[in-house]
Amino acid sequence: MDPLEAEKHITGMNPPVFFYVTYGLCLCLGLLCVLFVSLWSSLWLGGFAWNGSDLQFNWHPVLMVSGLVVLYGIAAVMYRIPFTWKQRKSTWKWAHAVLMFLALFLSILGLCAVFDFHRAADIPDMYSLHSWVGMCTVVMFAFQWVLGLAGFLLPCSPRWFRTSLKPAHVWLGSAILILSLTSCISGINEKLFFSLSNGDTEETYESLPVEAKFANFLGILIVAFGMIVFGILSKAQWQRPEIDESAYPLLSEHGT
Amino acid sequence: MDPLEAEKHITGMNPPVFFYVTYGLCLCLGLLCVLFVSLWSSLWLGGFAWNGSDLQFNWHPVLMVSGLVVLYGIAAVMYRIPFTWKQRKSTWKWAHAVLMFLALFLSILGLCAVFDFHRAADIPDMYSLHSWVGMCTVVMFAFQWVLGLAGFLLPCSPRWFRTSLKPAHVWLGSAILILSLTSCISGINEKLFFSLSNGDTEETYESLPVEAKFANFLGILIVAFGMIVFGILSKAQWQRPEIDESAYPLLSEHGT
Repeated sequence: MDPLEAEKHITGMNPPVFFYVTYGLCLCLGLLCVLFVSLWSSLWLGGFAWNGSDLQFNWHPVLMVSGLVVLYGIAAVMYRIPFTWKQRKSTWKWAHAVLMFLALFLSILGLCAVFDFHRAADIPDMYSLHSWVGMCTVVMFAFQWVLGLAGFLLPCSPRWFRTSLKPAHVWLGSAILILSLTSCISGINEKLFFSLSNGDTEETYESLPVEAKFANFLGILIVAFGMIVFGILSKAQWQRPEIDESAYPLLSEHGT
Repeated sequence: MDPLEAEKHITGMNPPVFFYVTYGLCLCLGLLCVLFVSLWSSLWLGGFAWNGSDLQFNWHPVLMVSGLVVLYGIAAVMYRIPFTWKQRKSTWKWAHAVLMFLALFLSILGLCAVFDFHRAADIPDMYSLHSWVGMCTVVMFAFQWVLGLAGFLLPCSPRWFRTSLKPAHVWLGSAILILSLTSCISGINEKLFFSLSNGDTEETYESLPVEAKFANFLGILIVAFGMIVFGILSKAQWQRPEIDESAYPLLSEHGT
């Protein structure tokens, strides 16, 4: 992007109203996802504990939806906020890395919750397609985070490595989002078949009780959130302009 | 893109070897998906019929994976093949529309298979999250196809409509791909829980018999295919160059 065009972006001569409306919708949907998954676990699945019981399992959907989908999605679109373009990129690189680390940490905690529950209830791990896809997602996420840290934040990282890593980082970032949506939808579907046919209740998934409608709607919210994040990521006009920060002393005085 | 740059693309001065390797991998994975889903339905689920029985259900995974994922993905990346850039865009627009129609037709046939089976077996329709997401996918696909036909192929479509439709068409195209992957993975997961706990066999999904491993691997193949299609779509350098075809008489003599 040439400096003039970049300046137009930075000074906000074209107020990106459509971006902020979409971004606001994205945040609202993200909050609704966290609220709905927490309510499902609290009101229908029995609440939370960390003692190997069914109640420990209930942390699994909450932590995966909050970490692997919502926090991940919000961290992914962070560079697209025009407000941040006025500031040094390095600050926002760190913010992106910290948010992504938090998302990864919640996801790993979510895996611990289900593995602990399986061990206590003598249920085998990693047999369903949901678990295979979910594990691929978290492993790819961890790999992406470590590679991103090494490539974009370590000062000793060579320039050629950053340049060649960037397109792969962007592609893998979207691929992980797709996998996380796939894992969450298959997981909610699986849990509803379990929880609505376990003998504690006469309701079945087939009879579509309130719990089923509520959790299905949570699934639709998750998909809608993912679509909005994906839409923000794929719109070329909303990308942070790649400018030469040395031309803007205020941006570069503390390094890039 | 300026004409010189476009000509470099068209005359193939930079042979896009990496594209063709990726595209070859995409086609191989697509074929493997169709082969694996057909083998699963034939060898473990009992084969095919169109009589309302379980065997009619077995068309559902085969038609959805073949239509909604594989054919859809192949039709989506068609414009990216450098070989096609030498020819008139209108020819490939029609090829894209016909392939997408075939994909939509197979998907609707796949829905008929499962609705017929439900009616005969007195099972309610549309209760699971898989069915909600799957129905959204097919409805969005049908909407996208009709809008695409009206906007890009009908000669009476105004230029402003085509121009403003294009980014939405591209975004919705990728969104449908994500939804179709999500629907297929949650569907395979659901079917494995049903088929491996129906009393006909002592094997359970938990014990991970050969059927479970085979169908889980099918799920991983579908995800891998989707990731490759998504990778091809998101690489800006692989997009068909937008050139002024009037500068190339051979391209424009029969209109664009």
